[in-house]
Amino acid sequence: MPGSSYGEIFKVTTWGESHGKALGAVIDGCPAGIPITEEHIQKFMDRRKPGASRYATKRAEADKIEIYSGVFESLTTGCPIMMAVKNEDHISANYDNIKSVYRPAHADYGFSKKFGIRDYRGGGRSSGRETLCRVAAGAVAVKALEQLGIKILTYTKSIGGIFVSEENFDEAQINKNELYMPDDNAYKKATSYLDGVISRGDSAGGIIECVIKGVKPGIGQPVFDKLDACISHAVFSIGAVKGVEFGAGMASASMNASKFNDGFYADEDKNIRKRTNNSGGITGGLSDGADIVFRAAVKPTPSISLAQQTADTLSNNVTVNITGRHDPVIVPRAVVVVEAMAAIALLDMILISLPSKAENLKRAYENL
Amino acid sequence: MPGSSYGEIFKVTTWGESHGKALGAVIDGCPAGIPITEEHIQKFMDRRKPGASRYATKRAEADKIEIYSGVFESLTTGCPIMMAVKNEDHISANYDNIKSVYRPAHADYGFSKKFGIRDYRGGGRSSGRETLCRVAAGAVAVKALEQLGIKILTYTKSIGGIFVSEENFDEAQINKNELYMPDDNAYKKATSYLDGVISRGDSAGGIIECVIKGVKPGIGQPVFDKLDACISHAVFSIGAVKGVEFGAGMASASMNASKFNDGFYADEDKNIRKRTNNSGGITGGLSDGADIVFRAAVKPTPSISLAQQTADTLSNNVTVNITGRHDPVIVPRAVVVVEAMAAIALLDMILISLPSKAENLKRAYENL
Amino acid sequence: MPGSSYGEIFKVTTWGESHGKALGAVIDGCPAGIPITEEHIQKFMDRRKPGASRYATKRAEADKIEIYSGVFESLTTGCPIMMAVKNEDHISANYDNIKSVYRPAHADYGFSKKFGIRDYRGGGRSSGRETLCRVAAGAVAVKALEQLGIKILTYTKSIGGIFVSEENFDEAQINKNELYMPDDNAYKKATSYLDGVISRGDSAGGIIECVIKGVKPGIGQPVFDKLDACISHAVFSIGAVKGVEFGAGMASASMNASKFNDGFYADEDKNIRKRTNNSGGITGGLSDGADIVFRAAVKPTPSISLAQQTADTLSNNVTVNITGRHDPVIVPRAVVVVEAMAAIALLDMILISLPSKAENLKRAYENL
Amino acid sequence: MPGSSYGEIFKVTTWGESHGKALGAVIDGCPAGIPITEEHIQKFMDRRKPGASRYATKRAEADKIEIYSGVFESLTTGCPIMMAVKNEDHISANYDNIKSVYRPAHADYGFSKKFGIRDYRGGGRSSGRETLCRVAAGAVAVKALEQLGIKILTYTKSIGGIFVSEENFDEAQINKNELYMPDDNAYKKATSYLDGVISRGDSAGGIIECVIKGVKPGIGQPVFDKLDACISHAVFSIGAVKGVEFGAGMASASMNASKFNDGFYADEDKNIRKRTNNSGGITGGLSDGADIVFRAAVKPTPSISLAQQTADTLSNNVTVNITGRHDPVIVPRAVVVVEAMAAIALLDMILISLPSKAENLKRAYENL
Repeated sequence: MPGSSYGEIFKVTTWGESHGKALGAVIDGCPAGIPITEEHIQKFMDRRKPGASRYATKRAEADKIEIYSGVFESLTTGCPIMMAVKNEDHISANYDNIKSVYRPAHADYGFSKKFGIRDYRGGGRSSGRETLCRVAAGAVAVKALEQLGIKILTYTKSIGGIFVSEENFDEAQINKNELYMPDDNAYKKATSYLDGVISRGDSAGGIIECVIKGVKPGIGQPVFDKLDACISHAVFSIGAVKGVEFGAGMASASMNASKFNDGFYADEDKNIRKRTNNSGGITGGLSDGADIVFRAAVKPTPSISLAQQTADTLSNNVTVNITGRHDPVIVPRAVVVVEAMAAIALLDMILISLPSKAENLKRAYENL
Repeated sequence: MPGSSYGEIFKVTTWGESHGKALGAVIDGCPAGIPITEEHIQKFMDRRKPGASRYATKRAEADKIEIYSGVFESLTTGCPIMMAVKNEDHISANYDNIKSVYRPAHADYGFSKKFGIRDYRGGGRSSGRETLCRVAAGAVAVKALEQLGIKILTYTKSIGGIFVSEENFDEAQINKNELYMPDDNAYKKATSYLDGVISRGDSAGGIIECVIKGVKPGIGQPVFDKLDACISHAVFSIGAVKGVEFGAGMASASMNASKFNDGFYADEDKNIRKRTNNSGGITGGLSDGADIVFRAAVKPTPSISLAQQTADTLSNNVTVNITGRHDPVIVPRAVVVVEAMAAIALLDMILISLPSKAENLKRAYENL
Repeated sequence: MPGSSYGEIFKVTTWGESHGKALGAVIDGCPAGIPITEEHIQKFMDRRKPGASRYATKRAEADKIEIYSGVFESLTTGCPIMMAVKNEDHISANYDNIKSVYRPAHADYGFSKKFGIRDYRGGGRSSGRETLCRVAAGAVAVKALEQLGIKILTYTKSIGGIFVSEENFDEAQINKNELYMPDDNAYKKATSYLDGVISRGDSAGGIIECVIKGVKPGIGQPVFDKLDACISHAVFSIGAVKGVEFGAGMASASMNASKFNDGFYADEDKNIRKRTNNSGGITGGLSDGADIVFRAAVKPTPSISLAQQTADTLSNNVTVNITGRHDPVIVPRAVVVVEAMAAIALLDMILISLPSKAENLKRAYENL
Repeated sequence: MPGSSYGEIFKVTTWGESHGKALGAVIDGCPAGIPITEEHIQKFMDRRKPGASRYATKRAEADKIEIYSGVFESLTTGCPIMMAVKNEDHISANYDNIKSVYRPAHADYGFSKKFGIRDYRGGGRSSGRETLCRVAAGAVAVKALEQLGIKILTYTKSIGGIFVSEENFDEAQINKNELYMPDDNAYKKATSYLDGVISRGDSAGGIIECVIKGVKPGIGQPVFDKLDACISHAVFSIGAVKGVEFGAGMASASMNASKFNDGFYADEDKNIRKRTNNSGGITGGLSDGADIVFRAAVKPTPSISLAQQTADTLSNNVTVNITGRHDPVIVPRAVVVVEAMAAIALLDMILISLPSKAENLKRAYENL
C-alpha cells in the first residue's frame, strides 16, 4: 500500500533510485519450478535499454540484470526472487541546476510536498529508470504465462498522430524497427515526424497496443477486481500513461448495443466463441475467451531542451532548460514496460482465480 | 482480493444479488465523528434510482437505504458501517427464458465458467443493481471529503456522439435535466437521439466526466499506487466502463511536450499553481494541486429488445430476445456511481498518504 | 486493515454492535459449490448461544442466523455470503450507569481514546457478542474443510486451575456437559469450583485446546505468514485470549532438542510420519502432516458483580458495580469461537497455498 | 500474502537464502525524514551476529549491512529502503550429507512437499539466517519509534528451566553478559547448564521477554487486528517460537477477575493510569497506556550433533548426524529478532491507527 508493491499472490516490490547504487525488484509468490535464467530476463531488459537508437536517451547503461535469490539450479524455488541492476553511468553533476526547480510535467512538486525531502538526482525514485524493475519482473511473469499457453504481443500503435493501419499490420515488422511499429509505412512516417520533433528540441507521445492470446474464460474477480480494472491499474501505474481503453474503448460510448454487443456462438466442436471482439476480451470484468486487447496513451516525454516557464522551491518564477540526456519519445522503450505490467497483472489474477470452485479446490488439495 | 472489497483504510465491501433478499455495503475504516444520516445517503441513492425517467428501467424500487451499524447518535463511530437496501420488485419469472442463455455483452458466460453455478435471476451478482452499494458507500466518502474542503462534480459529457460543448457548459443545468448534462442544447439533442434509439429497441452509451476540486498536492503513492492508477481501478470496476482518461487523455499521445507540459508558477501569494491542466491534476502519479479531471466511456446498455444471435449453456446456437425492463441508456444513472467510486478511491488515498513525513507522524501521534 | 476483516482469499468481514439492530458477517472468496444451509450454520450458533446453562449470561437471544446472499439453491455461488442475526433482547437502560466509566479489563478506555466517540451500550463493538459473526463464518469454513477431509475437535482443557487429565480424556464427553470438557471427573470438579466463583460474585478463566486432523504437509507460507503465526493472529483476535501455544508450547523452552525434536519415519506404506508431535503439527511454519494442536488461555470474564475501583471519563476515581447479565466463565461459549477462527485461518491458508508449484498451476489452469 | 512481506503501511519484504549471494530487506512506507545510517543498523546486526560467543555458531560472518536505496543525505526519503548483507562464509560442501534427509524439527519436509524443489544448502530460505533481514528492518522501526518517545527493552527471561528472578532483575546486566540476562545469578547458572548441554551434543531453549514503554492508549484495531494479535503474528513468524503470552499470559486462565482485572485510576494530574498490569498493556486489543509486556517461548535449536532417527526423501528410515556449525542455544541471538519484530509490528499499527478520528484527519490533512 505504500506504493512500491503490485500484486496479491505474484507480488512484485521494486526499489531504487535513478542515481543510487542500484535498482531492483523482489518477486514473492512465483510458483516453484519455472525455468528462469539471467539470459531470459536480459532479453527483456535489452528491449527498454537506453542508448539503443537515436530516439532514446544517450545514457550508456548496460542494464545488466543479476539474480540474487529464489532461483536454484535454473528453476524458481517458490521463494522471493531478487533481481537488481547496478547503476553505472550516473553523472549527478548534470542535475544540480534543477535541484530546486519544479520541472513541468515531472513529479518533483508532488514529491516535495509529500515527503519534504527528495533525491533530486535524475528524478530519484520517480525517474523512468524505475521501470527497468518492472521489466525484470515482467520477464518472469511472461515465462510463467507461456507455461499456460498464454502469449502477449505488444507494439507501438501510433506516434504523434501517425497510426499503424489495420490493412498494413505486419507482426513480423515489430522487432525489425526501433519504434516497434508493425507497419513499415507508418514507421517511416513516424521517423520523419520524430526527426522534426528532435530538431525543434521538443518531444512526442504515442499509443501502445497490447494483445494477449490464450486466456481461458472466467479470469478476473467480480465487482471491484475486474480483470480490466486490475490491468488498467497496472498500466496507469506507468508514469507517462494518460489513458487506457479496452476493445472498442472510448469509441464504444458512441455505439449502439446492436453494433457493440459481441454475440456468442458454438463452433463445430461445440466450443463457445464470440463473433466480434468489441469487449477487448473482457466482459463484465471476466475474460470471455477472446484475445484481450487494450491500448495505453503515452504523453510526450516531459524533459525537453526548449526553455520552459515554471517555479522553484522558493516560489520564484523561473525559466528552466533541461540539458540532460533524454528520450525525444518514450513510446518504443515503454512497449516492453506495458507488456511487463500486463503480464504481471494477468498472472496475479490467474493465481487469484484458481480456487473459485469447490471441485477444483478439492482436486488441487489432493494434488498438493 | 476475492473482488468484493475496495480500499485499504477506507475499505468498502459489498454483498447481494439483484433478486436476493437485499444488497448492502460494509464500510470499515471510516474515521469516527463524521455526521451521517440515512437522509444524506438517500439523496445519493435517489440519483441512481430506477424508474425516475423514461430513459431508465421501469423497475419500481424505492431503494430505501437503512443503516445497521457504525453510526451512533448520527455520528460515525469508527466501527463498520453496514447499510442495506431490501429488494422488493423482483419478478424472477421474467428471467426464466434466459436462465441457460449466454446473453451478449453480459457476464453470464464468464460467471458460468468461473463458478460452475450462477444465480441467473436478473444477472445475480453481476447485475448493475450491485452499484447501489457503491453509491451508499460513496455518499459517506463524499461527506468525509467535504470536511476536508474537497468537492466533486460529475456529469454526463456525451451521449451517443453528442457532446456537451465547452462554451455552453453550465453547471447549474446538471441537476435540471434527467440526463445530468451541463448544456441545455446538448441535452435536447441527446433526448431526441435517445428517442430514436428507444424506438428501434436499441441502446446507447456515453461519456461521464468527473472534476474534483480542493485536493492538496502530494496525494497518491509513488510507483504502483499512483493516484490515477487507483482511481482508474475504481472506475473501471464499474461494469460498463471501457475507457478511462485523465486531463488531455488519449489525445495527449498526439501532443508535443511544449504544448502538453503544465508549467508551474508562483502567484502573488507565493502559492504554487499551474498555467494549464493537461495532466488532469495528477502528475507523476501524485496530485499536483489542480482540479482532478477524468472521463469514463460507458458502453451501450447490453440488454436490448432486438433479437440477438448467441449460444446457450449446452452449446446450441440460439436467438435471444431480452424482454425485461432495461435502461435504454445507463449513463445518467451511472453518473453518481462514477462520483461514488472517485470519492471512495480518493478518500482511501488521502488516508493512506497521511503519515508520509516524520514530522507529521510525530504531530499526529501527539494528538492521538 | 481497519480491523474488521480477516483473511486474504477466504475473507471474513464482520459488522454490528451488541445493542444495534443486528450483527453480521460477509464472507468473500468462499469457493462456489459448497452445500450450505441456515440449519448447518445454526448448529454452530447454538454452541455459543447465551442462556444455555447456569454458567452463561441469562441474556435470552435466539441468535437465529439468516443468509442474505451468496447461496443459491443451497450451494455457495462464489459471491459474498452475508449472514446476520437480529438483536432482540437488548435492554439499553441496563447500561446507563456505566456510560461514562472505564470498566476494568474492558476496551472502554482504549475505544474512547481511539475514536473519541463510543457506543457504550453493552460494550458496543467490543462486546463479546461480536464473536457470533465469527462463528457463522467459521461454520462455512468448517464445511469447506470437511470436503477436504479435515476435521476440527475443540474443547475446554481447563477451568480455573482444573485440568482435563490425559488418562481420562474421553472425546464423547465433550458434547455431554455444558462446559465442553472431555473428562467427566474434571467437569465435576470444575462445576463445583464455578459454583464457588458465582457465589462470590467473581468470574473464572480457562484454557481451550484445538486439534485439527487431516491437514496435508506444506500448508502455510514461509517467513512471515507461517501457519502458526496466522492461526495465532486469528485466535489472539478473540478478545479474552492472553496466550497461545502450539504442541509442547511454553514448556518447550525448558526442553532439550534430543527430547523435543520430532523424528520422521517412513511407515510400511512408505508414507512419511512423525514419531512424536512436540511441534503441534507445524514445523518451520508449515504443516508437517501430524495433527495441528494448539491451546489458548482465556482470561476470567471482565464483568463481575463485585465492586471495583476504577476511573471515569472525567478523571474521577469511582467504584463501579456491574449489574448486567454476564457469564461467570466465558470459556465454554468460547470453544466454538476458537474452532471458528482456526477453521477460517486454516482454510484461508490452504487457498493461499494452492499455486505453490508450476505443475499444479498448469493442471489447475487446464481444469478451470 | 506469499509470506515474505509483513506490515500494511510500514511494509517489510525480505529475500535471500542462507547460502545464496546475499540476503536483504526492502522497507516500503517508512515516513520520510528519519535519520538513518549504516552504523545505526549495524549495531543491531551485531547483536545477532554469529561467532560472538561460545554459545553461538562458529560461522564467521561480518554480516555487514549496506543501504542501497531510500536514504538520501542520511535521511529516509519515504521511498523503499533496500538493505542487504552479502554471504561470505558459506561452505556448501558441509551440507551435502543432508541434501536428501528430512532433518527433525527443521522445515525440510514441509518445503519439499510445498515447492517440490528446495535449496537445501544451509536450510536455504528457512535458515535462521533469514532473520538478519528482520533485524535490519527492525533497526529502522526502532529509530522511528524513538522519535515518538517509545522505547523497547528485550532480554532473556529463561534458559532451560533457569529463570531471571524478579527481585534480582537488573536492566544494566542485559548487555553485560552474552546471554542478555538481566540477572547475574541466573546468568551464571545458565552458563553452567549450557556447558552441560554442549558437552552432551544437545541444545537448549528459553523464554524471551519484551517490554515496550511509552505507547499511548488506543493503538491497535478492533476485532481482527487487535494489537496483541498482530504482535503475536509477528513474533510467531520467528521460526523457533512455540508460544506467546501477554501480561499474566497462560497463568491468567487460573485467575479470578477480582485478581486479574487492572483497575484504572486518575493520578494527581488527572492522567488515567492502571493499578496493575495483568493485561500486559493491551486491553480489548488496544493499548491501555501501560507498558506492553509479552514473552515468547523459543524451542531448543533443532540442529544437534547427537545421532537422530529420521527419514529421507526416498522414504528410507535413516540416522542423521548434523555436523555443521550450530548454536547450542538460539535464545540470546533471538533477543534482538524478537525486538525487531515487535518494533515493526507496533510501528505499523501506529501508522494504521492515525486517522481514527475526523478531527485528527482534518488536522493532518491541513498539515500535509
